[in-house]
Amino acid sequence: MQHAPSSKPRRGRPPKLRGEDADTRELLVRAGLEVLTEKGFAAAGIDEILGRVNVPKGSFYHYFTSKEAFGLELIERYARYFAHKLDSHLGNQALAPLARLESFIADAVAGMQRFAFTRGCLVGNLGQEMGALPTSFRASLVATFVDWEQRTAACLEAAQSQGQIAAHADCQALATAFWIGWEGAVLRAKLERSAQPLSAFARFFLSGLPRA
Amino acid sequence: MQHAPSSKPRRGRPPKLRGEDADTRELLVRAGLEVLTEKGFAAAGIDEILGRVNVPKGSFYHYFTSKEAFGLELIERYARYFAHKLDSHLGNQALAPLARLESFIADAVAGMQRFAFTRGCLVGNLGQEMGALPTSFRASLVATFVDWEQRTAACLEAAQSQGQIAAHADCQALATAFWIGWEGAVLRAKLERSAQPLSAFARFFLSGLPRA
Repeated sequence: MQHAPSSKPRRGRPPKLRGEDADTRELLVRAGLEVLTEKGFAAAGIDEILGRVNVPKGSFYHYFTSKEAFGLELIERYARYFAHKLDSHLGNQALAPLARLESFIADAVAGMQRFAFTRGCLVGNLGQEMGALPTSFRASLVATFVDWEQRTAACLEAAQSQGQIAAHADCQALATAFWIGWEGAVLRAKLERSAQPLSAFARFFLSGLPRA
Repeated sequence: MQHAPSSKPRRGRPPKLRGEDADTRELLVRAGLEVLTEKGFAAAGIDEILGRVNVPKGSFYHYFTSKEAFGLELIERYARYFAHKLDSHLGNQALAPLARLESFIADAVAGMQRFAFTRGCLVGNLGQEMGALPTSFRASLVATFVDWEQRTAACLEAAQSQGQIAAHADCQALATAFWIGWEGAVLRAKLERSAQPLSAFARFFLSGLPRA
Protein backbone atom coordinates (compact mmCIF):
# COMPACT_ATOMS: atom_id res chain seq x y z
CA MET A 1 0.00 0.00 0.00
CA GLN A 2 2.98 2.35 0.17
CA HIS A 3 3.68 4.53 -2.82
CA ALA A 4 6.69 5.30 -4.91
CA PRO A 5 5.04 7.00 -7.83
CA SER A 6 6.90 7.43 -11.06
CA SER A 7 8.32 10.87 -11.71
CA LYS A 8 7.01 11.01 -15.27
CA PRO A 9 4.92 14.08 -16.10
CA ARG A 10 1.15 13.65 -16.28
CA ARG A 11 0.04 11.99 -19.46
CA GLY A 12 -1.40 14.47 -21.92
CA ARG A 13 -0.54 17.53 -19.85
CA PRO A 14 2.91 18.98 -20.37
CA PRO A 15 4.40 20.35 -17.15
CA LYS A 16 3.90 24.10 -16.93
CA LEU A 17 7.07 24.55 -14.92
CA ARG A 18 10.65 23.97 -16.05
CA GLY A 19 13.86 22.92 -14.34
CA GLU A 20 14.09 23.65 -10.63
CA ASP A 21 10.44 24.67 -10.44
CA ALA A 22 9.28 21.38 -11.93
CA ASP A 23 11.54 19.53 -9.45
CA THR A 24 10.08 21.45 -6.51
CA ARG A 25 6.57 20.74 -7.72
CA GLU A 26 7.39 17.03 -7.94
CA LEU A 27 8.91 17.12 -4.44
CA LEU A 28 5.68 18.65 -3.14
CA VAL A 29 3.60 15.93 -4.80
CA ARG A 30 5.80 13.20 -3.32
CA ALA A 31 5.73 14.74 0.15
CA GLY A 32 1.96 15.10 -0.18
CA LEU A 33 1.59 11.43 -1.10
CA GLU A 34 3.72 10.43 1.90
CA VAL A 35 1.82 12.55 4.37
CA LEU A 36 -1.60 11.59 3.05
CA THR A 37 -0.86 7.85 3.23
CA GLU A 38 0.31 8.33 6.81
CA LYS A 39 -2.18 10.76 8.28
CA GLY A 40 -4.73 11.90 5.77
CA PHE A 41 -5.40 15.53 4.98
CA ALA A 42 -6.80 16.99 8.15
CA ALA A 43 -4.13 15.89 10.61
CA ALA A 44 -1.27 16.99 8.40
CA GLY A 45 -2.32 19.96 6.36
CA ILE A 46 -0.32 21.83 3.80
CA ASP A 47 2.13 23.22 6.36
CA GLU A 48 3.58 19.81 7.18
CA ILE A 49 3.86 18.93 3.51
CA LEU A 50 5.67 22.19 2.72
CA GLY A 51 7.88 21.69 5.76
CA ARG A 52 9.04 18.26 4.61
CA VAL A 53 10.53 19.70 1.44
CA ASN A 54 11.54 23.12 2.82
CA VAL A 55 9.20 25.06 0.58
CA PRO A 56 8.05 28.34 2.17
CA LYS A 57 4.33 28.56 2.76
CA GLY A 58 3.94 31.62 0.63
CA SER A 59 5.14 29.89 -2.53
CA PHE A 60 2.62 27.02 -2.51
CA TYR A 61 0.33 28.83 -4.95
CA HIS A 62 3.23 29.23 -7.33
CA TYR A 63 2.95 25.49 -7.87
CA PHE A 64 -0.75 24.72 -7.40
CA THR A 65 -3.84 26.83 -8.02
CA SER A 66 -5.43 25.72 -4.74
CA LYS A 67 -5.19 23.17 -1.95
CA GLU A 68 -8.14 21.42 -3.54
CA ALA A 69 -6.33 21.12 -6.88
CA PHE A 70 -3.28 19.80 -5.05
CA GLY A 71 -5.41 17.19 -3.25
CA LEU A 72 -7.10 16.10 -6.48
CA GLU A 73 -3.72 15.70 -8.16
CA LEU A 74 -2.48 13.58 -5.25
CA ILE A 75 -5.52 11.30 -5.53
CA GLU A 76 -5.00 10.97 -9.29
CA ARG A 77 -1.27 10.26 -8.92
CA TYR A 78 -1.83 7.66 -6.20
CA ALA A 79 -4.65 6.03 -8.18
CA ARG A 80 -2.45 5.79 -11.27
CA TYR A 81 0.55 4.46 -9.34
CA PHE A 82 -1.64 1.89 -7.63
CA ALA A 83 -3.41 0.78 -10.81
CA HIS A 84 0.04 0.08 -12.25
CA LYS A 85 0.95 -1.97 -9.17
CA LEU A 86 -2.30 -3.93 -9.43
CA ASP A 87 -1.69 -4.65 -13.10
CA SER A 88 1.83 -5.89 -12.43
CA HIS A 89 0.35 -8.59 -10.17
CA LEU A 90 -3.10 -9.27 -11.56
CA GLY A 91 -1.80 -9.33 -15.13
CA ASN A 92 1.03 -11.76 -14.36
CA GLN A 93 0.26 -14.60 -16.77
CA ALA A 94 2.96 -16.76 -15.17
CA LEU A 95 0.65 -17.34 -12.20
CA ALA A 96 -2.81 -18.86 -11.91
CA PRO A 97 -5.40 -16.06 -11.48
CA LEU A 98 -6.00 -16.48 -7.73
CA ALA A 99 -2.23 -16.73 -7.15
CA ARG A 100 -1.99 -13.31 -8.84
CA LEU A 101 -4.33 -11.87 -6.22
CA GLU A 102 -2.26 -13.55 -3.49
CA SER A 103 0.84 -12.03 -5.03
CA PHE A 104 -0.70 -8.54 -4.82
CA ILE A 105 -1.66 -9.20 -1.20
CA ALA A 106 1.88 -10.34 -0.31
CA ASP A 107 3.30 -7.21 -1.96
CA ALA A 108 0.88 -4.98 -0.04
CA VAL A 109 1.84 -6.67 3.24
CA ALA A 110 5.55 -6.17 2.45
CA GLY A 111 4.86 -2.54 1.54
CA MET A 112 3.14 -1.79 4.84
CA GLN A 113 5.87 -3.64 6.74
CA ARG A 114 8.56 -1.56 5.03
CA PHE A 115 7.09 1.56 6.63
CA ALA A 116 6.41 -0.16 9.97
CA PHE A 117 2.66 0.01 9.31
CA THR A 118 2.66 3.81 9.51
CA ARG A 119 1.44 4.23 5.93
CA GLY A 120 -1.95 3.03 4.79
CA CYS A 121 -3.93 3.70 1.66
CA LEU A 122 -4.30 7.33 0.56
CA VAL A 123 -7.74 6.63 -0.91
CA GLY A 124 -8.92 4.91 2.27
CA ASN A 125 -7.55 7.67 4.47
CA LEU A 126 -9.26 10.41 2.47
CA GLY A 127 -12.45 8.34 2.20
CA GLN A 128 -12.59 8.18 5.99
CA GLU A 129 -12.10 11.95 6.20
CA MET A 130 -14.53 12.80 3.43
CA GLY A 131 -16.84 14.68 5.83
CA ALA A 132 -14.17 17.33 6.25
CA LEU A 133 -12.80 17.46 2.70
CA PRO A 134 -13.72 19.42 -0.47
CA THR A 135 -16.71 17.71 -2.08
CA SER A 136 -14.84 17.37 -5.38
CA PHE A 137 -12.68 14.69 -3.71
CA ARG A 138 -15.66 12.34 -3.38
CA ALA A 139 -16.11 11.55 -7.07
CA SER A 140 -12.38 11.10 -7.54
CA LEU A 141 -12.09 8.67 -4.61
CA VAL A 142 -15.16 6.67 -5.66
CA ALA A 143 -13.86 6.46 -9.25
CA THR A 144 -10.55 5.13 -7.96
CA PHE A 145 -12.25 2.31 -6.08
CA VAL A 146 -14.34 1.49 -9.16
CA ASP A 147 -11.15 1.31 -11.24
CA TRP A 148 -9.39 -1.01 -8.75
CA GLU A 149 -12.52 -3.15 -8.54
CA GLN A 150 -12.67 -3.55 -12.31
CA ARG A 151 -9.05 -4.70 -12.47
CA THR A 152 -9.73 -7.15 -9.66
CA ALA A 153 -12.97 -8.39 -11.22
CA ALA A 154 -11.08 -9.15 -14.45
CA CYS A 155 -8.66 -11.31 -12.46
CA LEU A 156 -11.52 -13.12 -10.72
CA GLU A 157 -13.21 -13.68 -14.07
CA ALA A 158 -10.00 -15.25 -15.36
CA ALA A 159 -10.09 -17.53 -12.30
CA GLN A 160 -13.69 -18.32 -13.11
CA SER A 161 -12.93 -19.19 -16.71
CA GLN A 162 -10.21 -21.55 -15.48
CA GLY A 163 -12.57 -23.20 -13.02
CA GLN A 164 -11.03 -21.78 -9.81
CA ILE A 165 -14.27 -19.93 -9.01
CA ALA A 166 -17.79 -21.28 -9.51
CA ALA A 167 -19.48 -20.44 -12.80
CA HIS A 168 -22.48 -18.91 -11.02
CA ALA A 169 -20.35 -16.42 -9.02
CA ASP A 170 -20.73 -12.66 -9.60
CA CYS A 171 -17.08 -11.63 -9.97
CA GLN A 172 -17.91 -7.91 -9.98
CA ALA A 173 -19.67 -8.25 -6.61
CA LEU A 174 -16.76 -10.30 -5.26
CA ALA A 175 -14.28 -7.62 -6.37
CA THR A 176 -16.40 -4.96 -4.66
CA ALA A 177 -16.44 -7.01 -1.45
CA PHE A 178 -12.67 -7.44 -1.70
CA TRP A 179 -11.99 -3.70 -1.82
CA ILE A 180 -14.51 -2.88 0.89
CA GLY A 181 -12.89 -5.39 3.22
CA TRP A 182 -9.32 -4.75 2.14
CA GLU A 183 -9.57 -1.06 3.09
CA GLY A 184 -10.84 -2.16 6.49
CA ALA A 185 -7.85 -4.49 6.77
CA VAL A 186 -5.39 -1.71 5.91
CA LEU A 187 -7.02 0.52 8.53
CA ARG A 188 -6.74 -2.21 11.14
CA ALA A 189 -3.14 -3.10 10.18
CA LYS A 190 -2.16 0.53 10.77
CA LEU A 191 -3.99 0.55 14.08
CA GLU A 192 -2.40 -2.70 15.30
CA ARG A 193 0.93 -2.12 13.53
CA SER A 194 0.70 -5.67 12.32
CA ALA A 195 0.21 -7.67 9.11
CA GLN A 196 -2.27 -9.91 10.94
CA PRO A 197 -5.45 -8.07 9.81
CA LEU A 198 -4.30 -8.13 6.18
CA SER A 199 -3.67 -11.86 6.18
CA ALA A 200 -6.82 -12.55 8.24
CA PHE A 201 -9.01 -10.76 5.72
CA ALA A 202 -7.19 -12.27 2.73
CA ARG A 203 -7.70 -15.75 4.18
CA PHE A 204 -11.39 -15.11 4.76
CA PHE A 205 -11.85 -13.67 1.28
CA LEU A 206 -10.08 -16.49 -0.56
CA SER A 207 -11.75 -19.24 1.43
CA GLY A 208 -15.14 -17.54 1.08
CA LEU A 209 -15.01 -17.47 -2.74
CA PRO A 210 -17.65 -19.74 -4.29
CA ARG A 211 -15.63 -22.66 -5.62
CA ALA A 212 -16.37 -24.59 -8.76
CA MET B 1 -23.18 2.97 13.78
CA GLN B 2 -24.59 6.19 15.12
CA HIS B 3 -24.50 6.78 18.83
CA ALA B 4 -26.99 7.80 21.42
CA PRO B 5 -25.10 6.93 24.56
CA SER B 6 -26.87 6.67 27.84
CA SER B 7 -26.51 9.61 30.16
CA LYS B 8 -25.76 7.45 33.18
CA PRO B 9 -22.52 8.28 35.00
CA ARG B 10 -19.52 6.01 34.47
CA ARG B 11 -19.82 2.76 36.34
CA GLY B 12 -17.67 2.68 39.47
CA ARG B 13 -16.59 6.30 39.20
CA PRO B 14 -18.94 8.82 40.77
CA PRO B 15 -19.07 12.08 38.83
CA LYS B 16 -16.79 14.68 40.34
CA LEU B 17 -19.00 17.51 39.23
CA ARG B 18 -22.50 18.33 40.42
CA GLY B 19 -25.54 19.95 38.86
CA GLU B 20 -24.88 22.32 36.00
CA ASP B 21 -21.20 21.33 35.80
CA ALA B 22 -22.07 17.67 35.40
CA ASP B 23 -24.59 18.62 32.71
CA THR B 24 -22.01 20.66 30.82
CA ARG B 25 -19.53 17.81 31.06
CA GLU B 26 -22.12 15.42 29.64
CA LEU B 27 -22.91 17.87 26.82
CA LEU B 28 -19.20 17.99 25.96
CA VAL B 29 -19.02 14.19 25.86
CA ARG B 30 -22.05 13.98 23.59
CA ALA B 31 -20.75 16.69 21.27
CA GLY B 32 -17.40 14.93 21.22
CA LEU B 33 -19.04 11.63 20.25
CA GLU B 34 -20.95 13.35 17.46
CA VAL B 35 -17.94 15.12 16.04
CA LEU B 36 -15.67 12.08 16.28
CA THR B 37 -18.13 9.81 14.48
CA GLU B 38 -18.42 12.42 11.73
CA LYS B 39 -14.88 13.64 11.24
CA GLY B 40 -12.47 12.03 13.63
CA PHE B 41 -10.20 13.96 15.92
CA ALA B 42 -7.82 15.82 13.64
CA ALA B 43 -10.32 17.48 11.33
CA ALA B 44 -12.53 18.68 14.16
CA GLY B 45 -10.43 19.37 17.20
CA ILE B 46 -11.55 20.55 20.57
CA ASP B 47 -12.62 23.98 19.30
CA GLU B 48 -15.45 22.59 17.19
CA ILE B 49 -16.63 20.37 20.04
CA LEU B 50 -16.66 23.29 22.49
CA GLY B 51 -18.37 25.45 19.88
CA ARG B 52 -21.24 23.00 19.44
CA VAL B 53 -22.21 23.30 23.09
CA ASN B 54 -21.19 26.94 23.61
CA VAL B 55 -18.55 26.15 26.18
CA PRO B 56 -15.71 28.72 26.15
CA LYS B 57 -12.33 27.28 25.23
CA GLY B 58 -10.75 28.35 28.50
CA SER B 59 -13.06 26.21 30.60
CA PHE B 60 -12.32 22.86 28.91
CA TYR B 61 -9.79 21.91 31.58
CA HIS B 62 -12.38 22.54 34.24
CA TYR B 63 -14.09 19.39 32.93
CA PHE B 64 -11.24 17.23 31.67
CA THR B 65 -7.61 16.94 32.77
CA SER B 66 -6.37 16.87 29.16
CA LYS B 67 -7.49 16.44 25.57
CA GLU B 68 -6.05 12.94 25.74
CA ALA B 69 -8.18 12.06 28.78
CA PHE B 70 -11.21 13.48 26.97
CA GLY B 71 -10.45 11.35 23.89
CA LEU B 72 -9.99 8.21 25.97
CA GLU B 73 -13.30 8.80 27.70
CA LEU B 74 -15.03 9.24 24.34
CA ILE B 75 -13.61 5.93 23.11
CA GLU B 76 -14.72 4.20 26.30
CA ARG B 77 -18.22 5.69 26.15
CA TYR B 78 -18.66 4.79 22.50
CA ALA B 79 -17.32 1.26 23.08
CA ARG B 80 -19.74 0.74 25.96
CA TYR B 81 -22.71 2.16 24.06
CA PHE B 82 -21.91 -0.01 21.08
CA ALA B 83 -21.37 -3.19 23.09
CA HIS B 84 -24.85 -2.65 24.50
CA LYS B 85 -26.25 -2.26 20.98
CA LEU B 86 -24.48 -5.42 19.86
CA ASP B 87 -25.85 -7.36 22.81
CA SER B 88 -29.39 -6.21 22.12
CA HIS B 89 -29.19 -7.86 18.69
CA LEU B 90 -26.75 -10.73 19.13
CA GLY B 91 -28.37 -11.80 22.38
CA ASN B 92 -31.90 -11.80 20.98
CA GLN B 93 -32.97 -15.38 21.65
CA ALA B 94 -36.16 -14.87 19.63
CA LEU B 95 -34.06 -15.06 16.45
CA ALA B 96 -31.80 -17.76 15.02
CA PRO B 97 -28.13 -16.80 15.58
CA LEU B 98 -27.32 -15.66 12.04
CA ALA B 99 -30.59 -13.69 11.90
CA ARG B 100 -29.34 -11.86 15.03
CA LEU B 101 -26.27 -10.74 13.09
CA GLU B 102 -28.50 -9.68 10.20
CA SER B 103 -30.61 -7.73 12.67
CA PHE B 104 -27.52 -5.86 13.91
CA ILE B 105 -26.54 -5.12 10.29
CA ALA B 106 -30.02 -3.78 9.47
CA ASP B 107 -29.90 -1.56 12.56
CA ALA B 108 -26.46 -0.23 11.59
CA VAL B 109 -27.70 0.54 8.07
CA ALA B 110 -30.72 2.38 9.49
CA GLY B 111 -28.43 4.25 11.89
CA MET B 112 -26.16 5.49 9.12
CA GLN B 113 -29.15 6.37 6.95
CA ARG B 114 -30.65 8.42 9.79
CA PHE B 115 -27.63 10.74 9.64
CA ALA B 116 -27.47 10.72 5.82
CA PHE B 117 -24.25 8.65 5.98
CA THR B 118 -22.34 11.52 7.57
CA ARG B 119 -21.57 9.57 10.74
CA GLY B 120 -19.40 6.47 10.72
CA CYS B 121 -17.78 4.51 13.50
CA LEU B 122 -15.83 6.47 16.10
CA VAL B 123 -13.42 3.56 16.61
CA GLY B 124 -12.84 3.18 12.87
CA ASN B 125 -12.33 6.92 12.41
CA LEU B 126 -9.77 7.14 15.19
CA GLY B 127 -8.11 3.91 14.06
CA GLN B 128 -7.56 5.49 10.65
CA GLU B 129 -6.07 8.59 12.28
CA MET B 130 -3.93 6.71 14.79
CA GLY B 131 -0.69 8.04 13.26
CA ALA B 132 -1.60 11.51 14.47
CA LEU B 133 -3.19 10.62 17.84
CA PRO B 134 -1.85 10.13 21.38
CA THR B 135 -0.35 6.62 21.60
CA SER B 136 -2.59 5.77 24.56
CA PHE B 137 -5.55 5.67 22.15
CA ARG B 138 -4.13 2.64 20.36
CA ALA B 139 -4.63 0.10 23.15
CA SER B 140 -8.11 1.42 23.86
CA LEU B 141 -9.18 1.17 20.21
CA VAL B 142 -7.69 -2.32 19.79
CA ALA B 143 -9.38 -3.51 23.00
CA THR B 144 -12.70 -2.22 21.69
CA PHE B 145 -12.41 -4.26 18.51
CA VAL B 146 -11.45 -7.33 20.54
CA ASP B 147 -14.54 -6.84 22.69
CA TRP B 148 -16.88 -6.50 19.68
CA GLU B 149 -15.23 -9.53 18.08
CA GLN B 150 -15.80 -11.66 21.16
CA ARG B 151 -19.49 -10.76 21.26
CA THR B 152 -19.75 -11.58 17.56
CA ALA B 153 -17.80 -14.83 17.91
CA ALA B 154 -20.23 -15.97 20.64
CA CYS B 155 -23.12 -15.41 18.22
CA LEU B 156 -21.34 -17.33 15.46
CA GLU B 157 -20.62 -20.17 17.90
CA ALA B 158 -24.32 -20.30 18.72
CA ALA B 159 -24.97 -20.59 14.98
CA GLN B 160 -22.39 -23.35 14.84
CA SER B 161 -23.96 -25.27 17.69
CA GLN B 162 -27.30 -25.08 15.87
CA GLY B 163 -25.77 -26.32 12.63
CA GLN B 164 -25.96 -23.00 10.70
CA ILE B 165 -22.14 -22.90 10.43
CA ALA B 166 -19.85 -25.87 9.74
CA ALA B 167 -18.43 -27.64 12.80
CA HIS B 168 -14.85 -27.17 11.57
CA ALA B 169 -15.18 -23.36 11.27
CA ASP B 170 -13.06 -21.06 13.47
CA CYS B 171 -15.73 -18.67 14.76
CA GLN B 172 -13.16 -16.38 16.39
CA ALA B 173 -11.38 -15.92 13.05
CA LEU B 174 -14.70 -15.34 11.31
CA ALA B 175 -15.65 -12.67 13.86
CA THR B 176 -12.28 -10.97 13.32
CA ALA B 177 -12.84 -11.00 9.55
CA PHE B 178 -16.31 -9.55 10.07
CA TRP B 179 -15.05 -6.55 12.02
CA ILE B 180 -12.11 -5.93 9.69
CA GLY B 181 -14.44 -5.88 6.70
CA TRP B 182 -17.31 -4.12 8.42
CA GLU B 183 -15.15 -1.11 9.27
CA GLY B 184 -14.15 -0.97 5.61
CA ALA B 185 -17.84 -1.06 4.68
CA VAL B 186 -18.69 1.80 7.05
CA LEU B 187 -15.83 3.86 5.60
CA ARG B 188 -17.07 3.21 2.08
CA ALA B 189 -20.73 3.90 2.99
CA LYS B 190 -19.67 7.31 4.30
CA LEU B 191 -17.64 7.98 1.16
CA GLU B 192 -20.47 6.95 -1.19
CA ARG B 193 -23.28 8.21 1.06
CA SER B 194 -25.01 4.92 0.42
CA ALA B 195 -26.01 1.74 2.23
CA GLN B 196 -24.76 -0.28 -0.74
CA PRO B 197 -21.27 -1.06 0.67
CA LEU B 198 -22.77 -2.22 3.98
CA SER B 199 -25.18 -4.64 2.32
CA ALA B 200 -22.54 -5.74 -0.21
CA PHE B 201 -20.11 -6.70 2.54
CA ALA B 202 -22.82 -8.29 4.69
CA ARG B 203 -23.94 -10.41 1.73
CA PHE B 204 -20.38 -11.52 1.02
CA PHE B 205 -19.72 -12.31 4.69
CA LEU B 206 -22.90 -14.33 5.20
CA SER B 207 -22.56 -16.26 1.96
CA GLY B 208 -18.85 -16.88 2.61
CA LEU B 209 -19.45 -18.54 6.00
CA PRO B 210 -18.52 -22.22 5.93
CA ARG B 211 -21.87 -23.98 6.00
CA ALA B 212 -22.60 -27.24 7.76
